[in-house]
Amino acid sequence: MSYERIKAEELFDKVVNAEQAAQLFQHGMVVGASGFTKAGDSKVVLDALAKRAEKEELKVTLMTGASLGHDTDAKLTRAGALAKRMPFQVDRILREAINKGEVLFIDQHLSESAELLHNQCLPPVDIAVIEAAFIERDGSVVPTTSVGNSVTFLSLAKKIIIEINTKVPESIYGLHDIFQPENYPHRNVIPIVAPENRIGRRSIPVDINKIAAIVFTDIQDSPADIAPPDAKTTAIAQHLLRFFEDEVKKGHLTDRLLPLQAGIGKVANAVLSGFKDSNFYDLRMFSEVLQDSTFDLLDSGKMSFASASSITVSSECYDRVFSNLQRYKDRIVLRPQNISNTPGLIRRLGVIAINTAIEFDIYGNVNSTHIGGTNIMNGIGGSGDFARNAYLSIFVAQAASKDDNISHVLPMVSHVDHTEHDVDILVTDIGLADLRGLAPRERAQTIIDNCVHPDYREALQSYFDRAQALRGGHTPHILEEAFSWHTRFRETGSMK
Amino acid sequence: MSYERIKAEELFDKVVNAEQAAQLFQHGMVVGASGFTKAGDSKVVLDALAKRAEKEELKVTLMTGASLGHDTDAKLTRAGALAKRMPFQVDRILREAINKGEVLFIDQHLSESAELLHNQCLPPVDIAVIEAAFIERDGSVVPTTSVGNSVTFLSLAKKIIIEINTKVPESIYGLHDIFQPENYPHRNVIPIVAPENRIGRRSIPVDINKIAAIVFTDIQDSPADIAPPDAKTTAIAQHLLRFFEDEVKKGHLTDRLLPLQAGIGKVANAVLSGFKDSNFYDLRMFSEVLQDSTFDLLDSGKMSFASASSITVSSECYDRVFSNLQRYKDRIVLRPQNISNTPGLIRRLGVIAINTAIEFDIYGNVNSTHIGGTNIMNGIGGSGDFARNAYLSIFVAQAASKDDNISHVLPMVSHVDHTEHDVDILVTDIGLADLRGLAPRERAQTIIDNCVHPDYREALQSYFDRAQALRGGHTPHILEEAFSWHTRFRETGSMK
Repeated sequence: MSYERIKAEELFDKVVNAEQAAQLFQHGMVVGASGFTKAGDSKVVLDALAKRAEKEELKVTLMTGASLGHDTDAKLTRAGALAKRMPFQVDRILREAINKGEVLFIDQHLSESAELLHNQCLPPVDIAVIEAAFIERDGSVVPTTSVGNSVTFLSLAKKIIIEINTKVPESIYGLHDIFQPENYPHRNVIPIVAPENRIGRRSIPVDINKIAAIVFTDIQDSPADIAPPDAKTTAIAQHLLRFFEDEVKKGHLTDRLLPLQAGIGKVANAVLSGFKDSNFYDLRMFSEVLQDSTFDLLDSGKMSFASASSITVSSECYDRVFSNLQRYKDRIVLRPQNISNTPGLIRRLGVIAINTAIEFDIYGNVNSTHIGGTNIMNGIGGSGDFARNAYLSIFVAQAASKDDNISHVLPMVSHVDHTEHDVDILVTDIGLADLRGLAPRERAQTIIDNCVHPDYREALQSYFDRAQALRGGHTPHILEEAFSWHTRFRETGSMK
Repeated sequence: MSYERIKAEELFDKVVNAEQAAQLFQHGMVVGASGFTKAGDSKVVLDALAKRAEKEELKVTLMTGASLGHDTDAKLTRAGALAKRMPFQVDRILREAINKGEVLFIDQHLSESAELLHNQCLPPVDIAVIEAAFIERDGSVVPTTSVGNSVTFLSLAKKIIIEINTKVPESIYGLHDIFQPENYPHRNVIPIVAPENRIGRRSIPVDINKIAAIVFTDIQDSPADIAPPDAKTTAIAQHLLRFFEDEVKKGHLTDRLLPLQAGIGKVANAVLSGFKDSNFYDLRMFSEVLQDSTFDLLDSGKMSFASASSITVSSECYDRVFSNLQRYKDRIVLRPQNISNTPGLIRRLGVIAINTAIEFDIYGNVNSTHIGGTNIMNGIGGSGDFARNAYLSIFVAQAASKDDNISHVLPMVSHVDHTEHDVDILVTDIGLADLRGLAPRERAQTIIDNCVHPDYREALQSYFDRAQALRGGHTPHILEEAFSWHTRFRETGSMK
């Protein structure tokens, strides 16, 4: 027990173990838990909730920041503890249950969960489960490796459970910038005009009387899976870096570029890694997640500041960050996700947004979430917040699957997450399509010429040509053929 | 000639007629013209451009605020004067040419054209053609019935043609609030926290040396077509008003509601008209267009303030407004469209957005622009700016076409403009579906239960049931059947 992590002594008697804390949950409750891209999530209380649900009927609606680590979503799913889940997940077991209709999932723009809660468009939060580094004298909470929706959950929940994680040093104090719009839906300006602006306090205000339980843990975040760049992801990164260099030559950008946002995944990782050997400098990030590549760029001197809502890194990088926290502290900041992802700031700052597509179509509509039009993978996450409002909205994908049986460039996407209005640049290992200032028919030809795997180029050109000849229109399509590639894959195992 | 409308005497020698002004255009140029929902558009210079193009090869890229009046788009199209057109149009002749691929059209979020121009993602503007009430002593320009993109065009164009419309009284001075973000892409805060906030100047700054021609006109804006409410649109309005009343009862809203945005069209008109006989009061508007219904609400005392980018009204209402300008002046304001429609403000103000759908699907994806998946009607306009960021995002449509041969509620929309993430409430004459807090399968059942024309309900239920049974998934669909209703209509003239 590490009672020194509780500066408000009147809370000492709230310390219990996870099983005791989990007794606070009741069937039908709404639970708001910390955790964003596997960082700063509940390590033991949600686990204890799962164990209770194995033995009794105990289904809850679980809202988080974003994804959880430690297989927590899998454990909750297997125990039948989840009635509804939002706004994001990445867990294989949970995903299967969602796609079977056993768990209801709401896939939400990550900036909007807090909006919806404050505006009473979602049911009220009964219990918040929040990981903290320590509790301040005034009962306010210092978060750990993510902020996510914790400020909102702590503000709105009727009862609060705090998990104090002693694995995270108290010296994390000062890394967070806690700011919230005041009286929803009436709000004042969010006074951020650069990624490095700090506008808030360092701990999350809490009504001390709502703290119902405090649990100690000593468990590190689940490490990020870092896939090293391969030939295809390196090719994508090279195309994109060359594009940025050209934009600098044209006078559109400086060598400092503009604040970068990058989604998670090996393509985004390869792109960020590519900056290390580039001529760009004084880069800044205004993103959701700080990944290994962010710290590599900070260490190499290429990046001067990074703002996000979480730190999700490999074990090696975790040790590097937390052994050298002072070195990074004035160069990184963690914000609530309704600040890191808020549309107005993304537009105001002129963010360059780089996100991953599952598939895109000849007009530049992007599917970020669904397989075969029906089955969800993870969720839209922050891609919509950023793509819609970015200075440059870039989506990256491999042109085809590993065995080339699936083309990721299609006549029509089977599910639309981002419409052509919100997509400026598409990049595959084959090449880059700059769609700015192009009408749909021009977009189609540019995408076919630059992004398609050679095995599929002729068929896609044929579809586009026939659509123009047979049906015409602003956006030529042959509706009865638009999904034939998906159907063929379902029936034969290949789109060819 | 009304030289008193030119307060900068050094510009007197720029006065020419429309034909002389039109000599400034050259083949291949980019023209930025005023005009937003048929208000404050060029009355004679674009017309003279069309006449020139009838006789010689003279194709331009034409950007405007939004739609033009006086059949200008039709004249330009017939003359072959348009290579490319953006960001919005409503003209039948132009629409046909776009759908044939003869004119390239870029359908843009109305908040974004200014962004794209300032950020050099579109080619530079060669000539601006801007309607004005008068030119100030310092060369700055006082616009007429719209602001649209005129501030951007005047700032970026190499040459400027001003059409001074003497039909618009000089007393319009003070109606406009001219504010622009300073140095794209780096920007400061836009300090608006309520619809009535005025943050800018009253005329648009202009480099006087760029004014190449001044033309006088005396022609009124094309009147708005006002369709009186009918049984279906009245039913939609009633469903929506009852919903608002319920939200007040639940304590989610007050009787003042929140700032309203309403698209153009007879459904939106019926909804706004419905407020006249309601118990709501002190209503405010933060919208794109001030329509007849806005002035009716202002006159009836139901509405206290309205902010938009244009005034588009019937002839009767036009006379009423301009004979009583002093009465309205402190209760309305016209802003640049990149302010009226900016995502950050719409979210900050908590706007209630009401827009019209062409069709929507069982999951709540909305098509605002395309017929049969290929042919564009008008364009996305501001619907995306508002729907994504609104406190409540509402879409309205008649459940079926006049002859009931087309259901506007479908298995899958043939074109996606707004994804399910951005749609809270759907209303048809049949009923209202409140989709907040629902997962896709719940959304589908709620929409089928509440919004579908009875002739189609059974078939839609069958599709949804079979999609769940056959394919399952987070978003159950049978891809090869998803567009079968559209295909059946194309082949038989009916979706039945």
